[in-house]
Amino acid sequence: MGTLKFKLTVAYDGSSYHGWQTQPSGRGVQDQVERALARLFRSHPSVVGSSRTDAGVHARGLAAHFEVPAEEFRMPAGHLPLALNALLPPDIRVRSAARVPLAFHARFGTRSKQYRYQVWNHPVMDPLRRNQAWHVPRPLDLAAMRTAAADFVGRHDFRAFTTNRGTELLDPVRTLTRCSVRRRGPHVSLIIEGEGFLYKMCRAIVGTLVQIGYGRYPATAVPAMLAGKDRRQAGVNAPAHGLVLWQVSY
Amino acid sequence: MGTLKFKLTVAYDGSSYHGWQTQPSGRGVQDQVERALARLFRSHPSVVGSSRTDAGVHARGLAAHFEVPAEEFRMPAGHLPLALNALLPPDIRVRSAARVPLAFHARFGTRSKQYRYQVWNHPVMDPLRRNQAWHVPRPLDLAAMRTAAADFVGRHDFRAFTTNRGTELLDPVRTLTRCSVRRRGPHVSLIIEGEGFLYKMCRAIVGTLVQIGYGRYPATAVPAMLAGKDRRQAGVNAPAHGLVLWQVSY
Repeated sequence: MGTLKFKLTVAYDGSSYHGWQTQPSGRGVQDQVERALARLFRSHPSVVGSSRTDAGVHARGLAAHFEVPAEEFRMPAGHLPLALNALLPPDIRVRSAARVPLAFHARFGTRSKQYRYQVWNHPVMDPLRRNQAWHVPRPLDLAAMRTAAADFVGRHDFRAFTTNRGTELLDPVRTLTRCSVRRRGPHVSLIIEGEGFLYKMCRAIVGTLVQIGYGRYPATAVPAMLAGKDRRQAGVNAPAHGLVLWQVSY
Repeated sequence: MGTLKFKLTVAYDGSSYHGWQTQPSGRGVQDQVERALARLFRSHPSVVGSSRTDAGVHARGLAAHFEVPAEEFRMPAGHLPLALNALLPPDIRVRSAARVPLAFHARFGTRSKQYRYQVWNHPVMDPLRRNQAWHVPRPLDLAAMRTAAADFVGRHDFRAFTTNRGTELLDPVRTLTRCSVRRRGPHVSLIIEGEGFLYKMCRAIVGTLVQIGYGRYPATAVPAMLAGKDRRQAGVNAPAHGLVLWQVSY
């Protein structure tokens, strides 16, 4: 008989969830996906996601895998998104599904992850974006932010940009391949890509860049923050609701 | 002493409201704006809006006016947005305020209004856009939609594109100056501009164009629909949540 393994690409509006990870409250996105799978497959597959994501963080392309006994799977893999979306709440959508080799692992196999962060930089917030962008009313110096963003790219000890969790600090070195800042009118987007991320690392990078953008720190502050390895010397954590896990590559 | 008159530009997420207009339930956007004004001015000004907007329709630039006795107004007009936004719920924002002559009237003085309608044209809905775009899963023929859209521009009897309300049918002739369709990936935007609109006219135009886009009607169907003056010969009303009152000009 054997086992089949599938990869799902999942998008969600994180506003109503306590992050991806299963919660005792049942308000993890993973809980919802497992509930839908349990209605399709007797074996109640559990799901492994590429990332945890904090409460309120959104996803456009979180990757996840699950396994199911071959004899329970009676549809073309391409029908999985439709079948699951019919059972999921409208703030969670399976964008695609594909059969993968049993060796595939959504968490351990990742090659890179891209996050995007939206800032609304205008004195008045756009009410249609209030749950998906951080409202920064004061003018931002984009040139200073871009200078600072470039200093995050490369292999660094990111201890100053994580909210302490014991185990990760044994290996706080990560490699960023991209950290860029774009503006279109009041809409400022930050794109951050890397092989892996520490807990709340993206939000600490964004918070620091925004504080550099309004002059709280100089444009050249990042190298010393990285070298200092002290969370208190870096900037604030940007709020969760501006962050989107955009894409995960294998 | 005298009276001062102000124009407000208001943006809102219409998801939680029964439209702009004051409601017995108090769930009109206007009710919220008047409640905020009543906390700033003893005279409890009432507000006149440029448009009613249906339940669920959003606004980026609805215009409104109110009057206040000069002796009650003790701040620069430029401070009004900040003062009002501090009292309004986060899904309603006053974008700007300006003193206007007493002859200004937000409803009767309009020169043109622009609406924008968002369609998400992809088999799977984007959960982050689900309250601000109509999900149309089937592929759309944009060329057919553009041909049809051009036939709406000009001065026409729009009786076939309104949901019957007695008084308007005495004068169902309106002039559209723009009706265009743009695509960026799965994101299809319709821009409709005109001197004035009948009840639900925008949503009937969009619904008809989308039905033309997936072949329910031919690209050349619009002139006969207009000439027929029969609501049943035109297309469906597009859902409210994709529509934004974008801009009002005087």
